[in-house]
Amino acid sequence: MTTVPEARTNDAGAGWSRPPRVVALGGGHGLQATLAALRGVTPRVTAVVTVADDGGSSGRLRRELGLLPPGDLRKALEALAPDGPDGQLWSRVFGHRFGGSGALAGHAVGNLLIAGLLEVLGDPVAVLDHVRRLLGVRARVLPMSTEPLDIEAEVSGLSDNPHRLRRIRGQVAVATTPGRVKRVWLRNVADPDGRLTACPEAVHAVHSADVVILGPGSWFTSVLPHLLLPELHDALLTTTARKVLVLNLVPQPGETAGFSPEQHLHVLSEHAPRLRVDDVIADIDSVPTPDRLRRATGELGGTTHLRRVADDDAPDRHDPAALGAALAAAIGVADRTVEHSGGAEGVADLDRFGLAGPADLCGQPSGPAARADEEDERWR
Amino acid sequence: MTTVPEARTNDAGAGWSRPPRVVALGGGHGLQATLAALRGVTPRVTAVVTVADDGGSSGRLRRELGLLPPGDLRKALEALAPDGPDGQLWSRVFGHRFGGSGALAGHAVGNLLIAGLLEVLGDPVAVLDHVRRLLGVRARVLPMSTEPLDIEAEVSGLSDNPHRLRRIRGQVAVATTPGRVKRVWLRNVADPDGRLTACPEAVHAVHSADVVILGPGSWFTSVLPHLLLPELHDALLTTTARKVLVLNLVPQPGETAGFSPEQHLHVLSEHAPRLRVDDVIADIDSVPTPDRLRRATGELGGTTHLRRVADDDAPDRHDPAALGAALAAAIGVADRTVEHSGGAEGVADLDRFGLAGPADLCGQPSGPAARADEEDERWR
Repeated sequence: MTTVPEARTNDAGAGWSRPPRVVALGGGHGLQATLAALRGVTPRVTAVVTVADDGGSSGRLRRELGLLPPGDLRKALEALAPDGPDGQLWSRVFGHRFGGSGALAGHAVGNLLIAGLLEVLGDPVAVLDHVRRLLGVRARVLPMSTEPLDIEAEVSGLSDNPHRLRRIRGQVAVATTPGRVKRVWLRNVADPDGRLTACPEAVHAVHSADVVILGPGSWFTSVLPHLLLPELHDALLTTTARKVLVLNLVPQPGETAGFSPEQHLHVLSEHAPRLRVDDVIADIDSVPTPDRLRRATGELGGTTHLRRVADDDAPDRHDPAALGAALAAAIGVADRTVEHSGGAEGVADLDRFGLAGPADLCGQPSGPAARADEEDERWR
Repeated sequence: MTTVPEARTNDAGAGWSRPPRVVALGGGHGLQATLAALRGVTPRVTAVVTVADDGGSSGRLRRELGLLPPGDLRKALEALAPDGPDGQLWSRVFGHRFGGSGALAGHAVGNLLIAGLLEVLGDPVAVLDHVRRLLGVRARVLPMSTEPLDIEAEVSGLSDNPHRLRRIRGQVAVATTPGRVKRVWLRNVADPDGRLTACPEAVHAVHSADVVILGPGSWFTSVLPHLLLPELHDALLTTTARKVLVLNLVPQPGETAGFSPEQHLHVLSEHAPRLRVDDVIADIDSVPTPDRLRRATGELGGTTHLRRVADDDAPDRHDPAALGAALAAAIGVADRTVEHSGGAEGVADLDRFGLAGPADLCGQPSGPAARADEEDERWR
């Protein structure tokens, strides 16, 4: 069942005269799903990515070199790479992991390149702008914070006393601990009692957005963290952007095992009580009791959109075209942009906005100052 | 003392109507010196690079992943990077080595990226064409062979019997063994008794060149190897290109300690008896007995050019502008191209050929087939 949203911001109801500026917040595969879905919806995309990963290649780089974990940033860039041979080649190379059993085994090539750029340039925003130009990515990819962060959680069910809460530290530990996560918060790695600072460009992007999208993704370790950085939290509360929440298709073992869709919303509210949302998109086959979800969405001030958005062949993955269509319908982008969304056709459709094609690789990189505004200006 | 060469190929004596196609063969810092010098001379450069390195970051990658050692290829690309901010940034990142004492310590970022591309694409020629486009390098960089090679040497002076020859294997071992290198040869790493194959594009480049330059560089491990691959050896013998030899400024401990300039030529002749050269360029202050060098050059059929080509502040390094001027004089490129060679001015001067500026980063990569010809065609 599909609910058509009321026109809310700008000229959403009558279709957009220019493609909406969309900020997608998340991490890992969930954010990749949103970014793939947005290909057919709008080219004006900014991805804001969690930087608390401490596992795999990213965790090794972070521990060895003290850098921002690059893996989720790389995955976002890969999802945004254009369909041409160059973008696809670099995307493949970025995602390629060295094999064998030596010192490099398991490292993704893109992680190593981002790590090298971080060591040379320092500023992660400048690094990501260089990398996206290499990949021909028009959208912007920003870290939620320019400092690596740690996730900590209170988890119950780890001892005989079911009410006993234990503190678990680190994204991998939180995501894999068998107990039930009750609450998460972030820590500054360099100074555990220090201030948490959001990336200014990410805060600016949320304020300037027409639409912000939160989720899908690992709920406690990729979605909620965006609400746990004070500056980003405040930006999400005060922005005039339409706020869209995309729910997961299946509960995630270790994080949200046994959680109903509405419980995902309750957890969100517990971590950010003042957050309102306009739209909640969920897969129609993943919602056992739609009325409960509608009630929970209503409590957040929003409308529930139940659509078939799962991949027919892999029901735990979103289908980019179907999720794109659901997002477009919720946002109010005219249907014909969306009908052929996904893959090359989706990008080609953006020609009607005069905006298709990869970023201009031959342009000069913009300096750190006023980058966000410049970026906005390109689309005005 | 400078000797003006006689006109030999094309319209050298009267200046070139178009910039000459120059192929520079070598490896390591020596090849970097030649490539830096050529910036002010011609934009039509192909670098052919040794692939027998087994030390440092390259050696580790080669052992861990069984790949072509990328270090010398990377160094050539760095030397060719244009002066604009993009080329210089990527060149800096490529040369950046991870610090610390972890698994990545000492690895150059560019080596890791080339290694990743080699694993994904397989074909080193395609890999290098992608990387040079990333760096904005107009010149081509080719490996002498698409398979990693080993250097072996017979070395005397390692035991009490000065005539006893011992066999030493590996570039690092050959370059650092205290004895006297008598003879070197190459081995196919995958099949030590197997055939040695030159990179076809490198052979083609030598055949199509107007000028080929051999040296400076580690004589036994970076210069002579090009004469030890049968196909490349034959191409160097049969090409109609003008053949220029650039001598080292100082003997190299472990390889050529105590070697006079003319002994470098004798060693070359011993390894390639039928090779003739047209020009030998040597630093005037590095040649104790010019007449002996002239005689040795004469035996190879060439002319000796004694010029001041060392860096005033680092007498063991070539000054790019001075070496560029010496090369231009030997080749017969009109002086005014050369007067301001080196750095940005050198590149700007090439505007008179209508050929300055970095490669077109937005162009499509050419396929493996007919690449060499396409590349030639660009300049016709």
